[in-house]
Amino acid sequence: MLKKNLALAAVVAGALALVSLPALTAAAKSKTATKVANDGRAKCYECHDEVKALKEGSKHAKLACTVCHDKLGPHMDDPEKNKPVTVIDQALCGKCHKNQYDSFYKISYEAQARKEKGVPSGRSPMQDKLLAPYGFTYEHNEPRGHAYMVIDQFAVDRFQGGRFQFKDGWKGADANGKTWDVLVDKAEGNKEWKPLSQSAMAGNPTCIQCKTSDHILKWKFLGDKDPKAKWSRESNIVDVAKDTNNPVGCIHCHDPHGTQPRIVRDELINEIDKGAKMFAGKDGTTDLKVISFRDGFRKIGIMKKTDSRMMCAQCHVEYACGKGYEFGSAKPIGFDDQRTNHMPLKQVKELLEHYRKLNFFDFKHEVTGAQLVKLQHPEAETYSGSIHDKAGVQCHQCHMPKQKDKSGKLFSTHGMIRPKNHIKESCLGCHPKDSVEKKLYEIDAVQNYTRGKMRKAEYWLGQLIDSYAAAQRMGVAPTILDQARAKHEEAHVLWEWWTAENSDGFHNPGLARDSLGASITASKAGVKILNDAMAVAKKDEPKK
Amino acid sequence: MLKKNLALAAVVAGALALVSLPALTAAAKSKTATKVANDGRAKCYECHDEVKALKEGSKHAKLACTVCHDKLGPHMDDPEKNKPVTVIDQALCGKCHKNQYDSFYKISYEAQARKEKGVPSGRSPMQDKLLAPYGFTYEHNEPRGHAYMVIDQFAVDRFQGGRFQFKDGWKGADANGKTWDVLVDKAEGNKEWKPLSQSAMAGNPTCIQCKTSDHILKWKFLGDKDPKAKWSRESNIVDVAKDTNNPVGCIHCHDPHGTQPRIVRDELINEIDKGAKMFAGKDGTTDLKVISFRDGFRKIGIMKKTDSRMMCAQCHVEYACGKGYEFGSAKPIGFDDQRTNHMPLKQVKELLEHYRKLNFFDFKHEVTGAQLVKLQHPEAETYSGSIHDKAGVQCHQCHMPKQKDKSGKLFSTHGMIRPKNHIKESCLGCHPKDSVEKKLYEIDAVQNYTRGKMRKAEYWLGQLIDSYAAAQRMGVAPTILDQARAKHEEAHVLWEWWTAENSDGFHNPGLARDSLGASITASKAGVKILNDAMAVAKKDEPKK
Amino acid sequence: MLKKNLALAAVVAGALALVSLPALTAAAKSKTATKVANDGRAKCYECHDEVKALKEGSKHAKLACTVCHDKLGPHMDDPEKNKPVTVIDQALCGKCHKNQYDSFYKISYEAQARKEKGVPSGRSPMQDKLLAPYGFTYEHNEPRGHAYMVIDQFAVDRFQGGRFQFKDGWKGADANGKTWDVLVDKAEGNKEWKPLSQSAMAGNPTCIQCKTSDHILKWKFLGDKDPKAKWSRESNIVDVAKDTNNPVGCIHCHDPHGTQPRIVRDELINEIDKGAKMFAGKDGTTDLKVISFRDGFRKIGIMKKTDSRMMCAQCHVEYACGKGYEFGSAKPIGFDDQRTNHMPLKQVKELLEHYRKLNFFDFKHEVTGAQLVKLQHPEAETYSGSIHDKAGVQCHQCHMPKQKDKSGKLFSTHGMIRPKNHIKESCLGCHPKDSVEKKLYEIDAVQNYTRGKMRKAEYWLGQLIDSYAAAQRMGVAPTILDQARAKHEEAHVLWEWWTAENSDGFHNPGLARDSLGASITASKAGVKILNDAMAVAKKDEPKK
Repeated sequence: MLKKNLALAAVVAGALALVSLPALTAAAKSKTATKVANDGRAKCYECHDEVKALKEGSKHAKLACTVCHDKLGPHMDDPEKNKPVTVIDQALCGKCHKNQYDSFYKISYEAQARKEKGVPSGRSPMQDKLLAPYGFTYEHNEPRGHAYMVIDQFAVDRFQGGRFQFKDGWKGADANGKTWDVLVDKAEGNKEWKPLSQSAMAGNPTCIQCKTSDHILKWKFLGDKDPKAKWSRESNIVDVAKDTNNPVGCIHCHDPHGTQPRIVRDELINEIDKGAKMFAGKDGTTDLKVISFRDGFRKIGIMKKTDSRMMCAQCHVEYACGKGYEFGSAKPIGFDDQRTNHMPLKQVKELLEHYRKLNFFDFKHEVTGAQLVKLQHPEAETYSGSIHDKAGVQCHQCHMPKQKDKSGKLFSTHGMIRPKNHIKESCLGCHPKDSVEKKLYEIDAVQNYTRGKMRKAEYWLGQLIDSYAAAQRMGVAPTILDQARAKHEEAHVLWEWWTAENSDGFHNPGLARDSLGASITASKAGVKILNDAMAVAKKDEPKK
Repeated sequence: MLKKNLALAAVVAGALALVSLPALTAAAKSKTATKVANDGRAKCYECHDEVKALKEGSKHAKLACTVCHDKLGPHMDDPEKNKPVTVIDQALCGKCHKNQYDSFYKISYEAQARKEKGVPSGRSPMQDKLLAPYGFTYEHNEPRGHAYMVIDQFAVDRFQGGRFQFKDGWKGADANGKTWDVLVDKAEGNKEWKPLSQSAMAGNPTCIQCKTSDHILKWKFLGDKDPKAKWSRESNIVDVAKDTNNPVGCIHCHDPHGTQPRIVRDELINEIDKGAKMFAGKDGTTDLKVISFRDGFRKIGIMKKTDSRMMCAQCHVEYACGKGYEFGSAKPIGFDDQRTNHMPLKQVKELLEHYRKLNFFDFKHEVTGAQLVKLQHPEAETYSGSIHDKAGVQCHQCHMPKQKDKSGKLFSTHGMIRPKNHIKESCLGCHPKDSVEKKLYEIDAVQNYTRGKMRKAEYWLGQLIDSYAAAQRMGVAPTILDQARAKHEEAHVLWEWWTAENSDGFHNPGLARDSLGASITASKAGVKILNDAMAVAKKDEPKK
Repeated sequence: MLKKNLALAAVVAGALALVSLPALTAAAKSKTATKVANDGRAKCYECHDEVKALKEGSKHAKLACTVCHDKLGPHMDDPEKNKPVTVIDQALCGKCHKNQYDSFYKISYEAQARKEKGVPSGRSPMQDKLLAPYGFTYEHNEPRGHAYMVIDQFAVDRFQGGRFQFKDGWKGADANGKTWDVLVDKAEGNKEWKPLSQSAMAGNPTCIQCKTSDHILKWKFLGDKDPKAKWSRESNIVDVAKDTNNPVGCIHCHDPHGTQPRIVRDELINEIDKGAKMFAGKDGTTDLKVISFRDGFRKIGIMKKTDSRMMCAQCHVEYACGKGYEFGSAKPIGFDDQRTNHMPLKQVKELLEHYRKLNFFDFKHEVTGAQLVKLQHPEAETYSGSIHDKAGVQCHQCHMPKQKDKSGKLFSTHGMIRPKNHIKESCLGCHPKDSVEKKLYEIDAVQNYTRGKMRKAEYWLGQLIDSYAAAQRMGVAPTILDQARAKHEEAHVLWEWWTAENSDGFHNPGLARDSLGASITASKAGVKILNDAMAVAKKDEPKK
């Protein structure tokens, strides 16, 4: 085992040198190298039996190790001294999987850039009040496609004071590809640089593990600190950002050695391994096989059959990744604490209880002081248990429908689509008797209804916050304020879940309705507590 | 008279058995039956002379009585024992009037389902604040077409706790037709069922009399209780709903015996009969002839010439139909009181005075306690006196324009259209020199302007409500609060009229402007009263 | 000099008689008159040497003086007694410059009429709160094209109580052309007329000098009162309006005698002459040559080369034109004071300081009493220093792109366009490699981002106002309220600048971001001051 681990450590080290595309081309094209490598596969397997298990018999079986790994000759001569290089770049995969690669990076003009959610026509019109003073109130945009995952994470006013900007100014608003071809660090080499006004210093390394595959060999399982890991939860986020060159790669979902469907996001593997039931079949289990490398330094989860619900859940779930606090004491929780890389994998109505047990909250509300959880895109959770989920539909069927390339060959588009804009491809395959306009009408109906409920939930949260401020100014007793604050905590989670996820209720209309109704009920209860107390306080005032 | 009345009572009774479409087909197709009936027309007339008066000489003169009435033979043998069946279903009319029938039920995808009004981009963005705690704050949607009148009345969260849902889930959002083919009662046979959270228990039998023609033989004039009437204002609304199978039928506007233009909505007939002037010509009268059946059990109003302003006013008016309260004492007004089936037929600026005289209000505002009237779709009132009205244009000319069927035959579309989406058909007939884009521009101009005023009126109502809360908390004197509350009552009616009606001011731009301006003036006056009082209250505080 | 001045005074007087179009035609067509005039050009030059300098050698050199001036024969016979008539009507120019003229008046249906800014989806959703009680809160619409400049200035509820209305009602919403063919004065000859409810009495003669060229010979430089000037800053606005027949004319930007590019707006000439640097080149100057007529009664500024930045800046700048007040004392500033015709020509961040030095503010905020500057369309300022400005792009390149007429002849469109709707013409000339959809995407990105910031700035201004009201009601000390008020004054200018200008940030995204961020910072500081004081005030209350 020792030898193998050392060899892998070498891969990690080697990967640090960025390999440019011409180099890839050379590696891939060299017939001699391929032959040598094919001949030498057995040699590699001598140390790397877990690679053999994945690769042999698979569609990638005959691909030479040199296709993705460089400097193998010297490595074999002296494994410990000479580290191989592992190429982590979807461009390499794209040489054979051109349709998938091209569709991933194709610019889609249907999703606008820098579209703030906190405006009247946006997804979360009242967020500046309801999320104050959290970082998302500084800039919080509607999402664009996967090709922009890293770019949009960095080029936003809440991230590191707005230091990362489009290199080409607003002319570069549509550019995607290599991070540092698209963005520029305004602070680099500029001692005069200051954070933009009204920007925040948010950002953390764990969050980035969803958005890129670049760090797969440099990050220990769950992001713990380790001499073998270049990055950890505790690393400087700017350094990590500078080393992030690609958006999420092919290898997040496809094993490069053997093409098996897989997942790599550490905390998802961890939770499923510990027994999370969200993706389990009737027997209560998934077919996920967890493979540990280097004594648990890194784990991957291999599936027998594609389950895109798990693949997408690597990112499209609620998770904690920033610093937090413990309830009650408000004791800070730092990045050294594993709770800063955590996926509840719970449904919305169990979420607050879950976080209370975990003893983790994200921020205190500016007005009420409520201890609030900031929610992230829980698409997997909202989908779970929905009609479509029960019918066995997986994410990729709607979001990555098959389409034909110019030669007529079918392939799954890898530019994630908004089904509403592509109903024919996304819906009519399963609903062939329906028309595009009928399906659009149904989607609009669900979203209209859910948006109505979201707006109501926001109205009542706003009423609760305003009533709290008034009550506090009137000197209403702390015990009453505590009760109202507890209602705020409850109402908040039940609401924000739905503005954080991206389907406006379509993933699970019934659950959205139920949860948003419960949010309103909690807010109204809080308002009543405060109003009753204020009515009494008024009576207690000395008569004039 | 007695015999006739009994016979009609029989018809009522017979109608209770729902007649399915195959039965209709049989009735209509039977040549023998028709012949017999033709021969027998005179026989029917022996008792039913009011039918003779309508039928003879009309386009329907030669239609056999059996076309719409079944079990006539036994009835003639023993009128009191054997009751005939009257078919009340537009499908029967549709057998001859196919274009009208088909256009009525044609699905229009231009009006989305479940589109909440109380959202920033909606018709009434601040309604949750301004209408609290009234039922409409639970769900209040933009209207769809007539074919959805009953469905959308039942499938809404404010109606009976949300127990009626699309039978086919959201996939059934576009379905129309027979109520109980489209909807399902989630509470039926389910003892576990509970009202949805944040739903209301609204709904009443009078309201339904607008939305369907099904109860025409089961409902006494004005909905009073009567042994001969299956349903009354006091009936259980769920029972009435279950017996409501069709949206408003042909017979609401067209007399089935004689094809005369007519109205049947009891309270409209009542008010016109009592002298309401809204639809009167220069001589101060309409040509409406009120015919009473069975000693006033039921009345219809027959017109010599079509006046769609009256036909549409059967529903498209402000009316009271729910339980209410008396001003001042807030004494409840129950369904036994005829004020729960009332049409003011007044213009907006006389409305509050009218309701004060009637001594009826709908609800108390949650914050100010203002005694508010909840307004309904006053399209007839807003149209009354408008430029188009004065020019003799009637509702159907814009909303039911002539179109050609496949064979080139002209007919009036019976799917009510939004003129803005069909300007060529709706506007250019009378304005042939204008272009579609010019007319659209003019409509947009009116609606832009009116929406601006509505938003301003809402802003100031909101200010009034917030100022009231602040003043109340400061202990401002009740007499001052009373004055502000009165301003709220005034401002409310002058505003809500315009969000309740569906033309965004186009029906009567000048009146909209005038009324909304007056609403703002009243709100500002209320705010001033409160601010002045609060300034004094502050001064009175003990110096610190 | 005396003789010349008297002659010009005559022109002024003559111009008072309105010349109808048939008269123009006659003047232009008369070959004899032209010949006489050509022969007589030298004669005119004997007194009018400044005209000679402009005309000779120019493209208009050979145009007879009679083309634009009438009654010249009698004038030459006795210059002091007989005044010539000067035709000021773009229709005359349009006889030769047909494409330019037609494009100016072509109705564009893309910019809707009466589109209120203060609605949730509008440009300034919270203006009714933030600008209260200023006139713009009564009606404040998105702008339409230049052909509507005068019409839209008069037909708005904030102007003179709404007395000017579309002559043809809403059917005339798209009409443009001669003011009094389009509008009607509802108060004229109607003693019963009263201002519309919720209208304002705004409007002043200086403002009109931007919107029309009609008064060029009747208005002394800077609008001071003068026996030779029919109108001044102090004139009755309704009288001035009645004498305003055309929107801004060709002669605002093109010298009629010699076709030189020019400016005529007095205060712009004044400020550039005094050394304003906004349009200066690298050497710190412009090539503007200021020509004074009649001992400074009137000045024009002639350019060697077209600089549309200056031409457009005649109107598209922030300027003071209404009555105001002095800071601190709130001493009224009347129209007799030259500060009521003032252009700061400053960038946004220097603006408040500028107005403080000038000692002029527009209105006190209703709630906080902050002394606020109401800003006007500062398009020139926002553009100044932008990327496009630095690249030498001028206004007309994007807003008046070249297009082909039916015969294929290229001309600059004089109907100002919204580049976003005409990207091919406006953008791709300079950016030929880009696609329309890419450019649209970039513009949307800038505007999305800027709108996000505007909404945030508004939210925080609203918070500041609400907190102020609460603090005042709690009896917080005046010194604290003063501090908060100062923050309001600061935050207001930094925000309103961006809703007042029409590009939603596109003119200068970086500056927009910077300024709006600073606005939020100021508002938050104000809120903090108040909250801190309220927390102390609460503690100070006697314990219960």
